Amino acid sequence: MPTASTRVPQQERSRATQARLLEATVECLVEHGWSGTTTTVVAARAGVSRGAQLHHYPTKAALVTAAVTHLTERRAVELRTEAAALPAGPRRLDGVVDLLAAAFTGPLFVAALELWVAARTDAELRDALVPLEARVGREMHRLTVELLGVEERRPGVREAVQATLDLLRGLGVANLLSDDSTRRTALLHTWKRQLAALLTADDGPPTPGSARPH
Amino acid sequence: MPTASTRVPQQERSRATQARLLEATVECLVEHGWSGTTTTVVAARAGVSRGAQLHHYPTKAALVTAAVTHLTERRAVELRTEAAALPAGPRRLDGVVDLLAAAFTGPLFVAALELWVAARTDAELRDALVPLEARVGREMHRLTVELLGVEERRPGVREAVQATLDLLRGLGVANLLSDDSTRRTALLHTWKRQLAALLTADDGPPTPGSARPH
Repeated sequence: MPTASTRVPQQERSRATQARLLEATVECLVEHGWSGTTTTVVAARAGVSRGAQLHHYPTKAALVTAAVTHLTERRAVELRTEAAALPAGPRRLDGVVDLLAAAFTGPLFVAALELWVAARTDAELRDALVPLEARVGREMHRLTVELLGVEERRPGVREAVQATLDLLRGLGVANLLSDDSTRRTALLHTWKRQLAALLTADDGPPTPGSARPH
Repeated sequence: MPTASTRVPQQERSRATQARLLEATVECLVEHGWSGTTTTVVAARAGVSRGAQLHHYPTKAALVTAAVTHLTERRAVELRTEAAALPAGPRRLDGVVDLLAAAFTGPLFVAALELWVAARTDAELRDALVPLEARVGREMHRLTVELLGVEERRPGVREAVQATLDLLRGLGVANLLSDDSTRRTALLHTWKRQLAALLTADDGPPTPGSARPH
């Protein structure tokens, strides 16, 4: 029977094994795509036995879903840390948008997009991803509101944050096959000014014809 | 030797065969994804012999690239026809955005996204798609400017059109696994007002802090 002192290192080893598997999964998705990502390839890349892998993640759907969940959480922690280092003042918004744009063009976005597209035609993966999609969407929204330091109940703020995230998702897709960074930088330069105006407007977006109830 | 009168029907038959193959390709991509789309499955679906298919499109990359090109051109013609039926006046912009949003959530977008994602990890497909991506991007931009009836040389117009298309691409991805239409409709309602303001501004977007040279 394990004593308390042997149990703890074992739990730690277990967590380390899981983390290696999940990171190897995202690397595999980025490098080989969904169809080239097999549980065997991931186990080999992580240096983990097939037995240990199957113990932690019995199916490919379980493995990839856990990988995206784990790395999304880690990325959120990193984004908070990076955002904490940004200067205060009006330029902070620019920095936050740049951090988010980097996330939407980075490996985790690419890996998630591989899964989203594969899930369209893979019922098991789709069942696993749909609840995760809703959760990741809510958390990205909440994180963006927090990093921008805005008050979501103010009129127009929720829509402006949503539009920013949808725009960044579109820019992420535009960057898949070729380096779109020059166009993206110019476009985001304009968007940052628009977003600043939307977020600081007294009662919603400063647009004519808007019939928002107060 | 074929006479002029037999050559013409043969060219027509050839074009009809090609069109059937290209439409079957997009249907296959939507239904089975990139990895489930084989040239054999497409030929069977189109009711075309393998020989005829290989004659027109010798590789899978040639087939799918031609399919996206063909259907993008057809979709552009349809968009122009649908846009011509829209009423004039300020509500025209809303109708154009709705038409574009429908295109970015329709089967052609889904088929193209399958190719874009697959091309990341498939060198042959990537080589075929990169020039097509640039061309489709330019044509979508030009079509949007035309449908909105705006003057691209006016400051802010190019950026506003680009942001609209990137936003719609992001919304297309958000709609892949679940019906996002309620959120999309609300978001686009706000975006249409912003876009109208951007396009009708005297000298670019009405945002504070914008240091655009005139």
